[in-house]
Amino acid sequence: MTIIMHDLAGADPALRFSPYCWRIRFALAHKGLPVETIPWRFTDKAAIAFSGQGRVPVIRDGETVVFDSWAIAEYLEAQYPTPALFGSATAQAHARFINAWADAALLGGIARLILRDIYDVVDPVDSSYFRQSREARFGMTLEETQAGRETRVAAFRESLLPLRVVLRAQPWLGGAAPSYADAIIAGTLMWPRCCSAFAVLADDDVVAVWFERMLDQYGGLGRQAVRASA
Amino acid sequence: MTIIMHDLAGADPALRFSPYCWRIRFALAHKGLPVETIPWRFTDKAAIAFSGQGRVPVIRDGETVVFDSWAIAEYLEAQYPTPALFGSATAQAHARFINAWADAALLGGIARLILRDIYDVVDPVDSSYFRQSREARFGMTLEETQAGRETRVAAFRESLLPLRVVLRAQPWLGGAAPSYADAIIAGTLMWPRCCSAFAVLADDDVVAVWFERMLDQYGGLGRQAVRASA
Repeated sequence: MTIIMHDLAGADPALRFSPYCWRIRFALAHKGLPVETIPWRFTDKAAIAFSGQGRVPVIRDGETVVFDSWAIAEYLEAQYPTPALFGSATAQAHARFINAWADAALLGGIARLILRDIYDVVDPVDSSYFRQSREARFGMTLEETQAGRETRVAAFRESLLPLRVVLRAQPWLGGAAPSYADAIIAGTLMWPRCCSAFAVLADDDVVAVWFERMLDQYGGLGRQAVRASA
Repeated sequence: MTIIMHDLAGADPALRFSPYCWRIRFALAHKGLPVETIPWRFTDKAAIAFSGQGRVPVIRDGETVVFDSWAIAEYLEAQYPTPALFGSATAQAHARFINAWADAALLGGIARLILRDIYDVVDPVDSSYFRQSREARFGMTLEETQAGRETRVAAFRESLLPLRVVLRAQPWLGGAAPSYADAIIAGTLMWPRCCSAFAVLADDDVVAVWFERMLDQYGGLGRQAVRASA
């Protein structure tokens, strides 16, 4: 049965740009599970009220509703064990750290480079919600969050050193093959790729080289995604 | 056969304070492997020249010599599979990220809180080497590296958010039981514990609560370690 996923979309309904939703798109593709995505906007709380909360991704798999990208990944692994996203309880436990690092460090770093650009791509119905909620969260205007990014991007790229160390030693974050760790980081990097023309990675960075390979995985799922800047 | 390990020591030969050596002490204890440690000082390159390089930990297991904490952990897992430090290739691949994060973010953050304190505990034979090499690396005096730490420690503690998120969800970084991920982070935290009276963690932090439990693991290996400030 096809899994239904509510997926954050922009003014262009084909523009899908949530880093959390992209993690699950990659996870579903990894498992070869068909998915039907439903475009969703930040303010459309009614459309996902059935999940008991107000954020995406939300999936519906038959009678089962799951929200929160990490919980969805755990659900998919338990329900559809192969191909594995984790493959062992210890691998899953370790991936939780990578997920937490992506949420705390990677997302926060990217936000300060592209938040104003996102404002340009969100649906008009979401514009004032997006500006108000993000300006409250960051304590500054959207314009201020990405001011000086041309110089600040160097520190952001430096903060990716742990990824760089790993990807110099092994082809995928999951080792010899992609795992959910690859979905987490690539999913997060789909966010700037889809929303902004600003290059968060240097082309010659091993992280960028790995990301290009991830874009071509799963039949080019990431490569084919609509980009606002294209 | 008892494994021999060259282990960084201070002026007090019983004071062992290398974050990399501690990772391996925990790893060896996890596997129940007996170890004989040989106190070593930074400048005693001759003592480990047989390994072909100049840093510890270095282990000798029969005829086999291995250096670099990550390489040693991989060696131990391959040679003595149970009890597992990783248990699967994917778990090991994911742990490499945690190791790289500990090296890049955690060690760097701790260094800026306690580097001058370490100077007080190193062996006199190492003092000028330690000061010169660290001042060159950090581009400032040892005294400057830890200046203002009482206020800066808040930002350091905030940087531990990924650990906090994981340890709120599961008892160990390895999940239901400790893995090498626990050895990596606890080993790194043994460094300030053994060298400095400065509290890098807040007592009520879930990371501190977990660390206290790690100190009691393996017969209290961490708990019993000599501390410079005691």
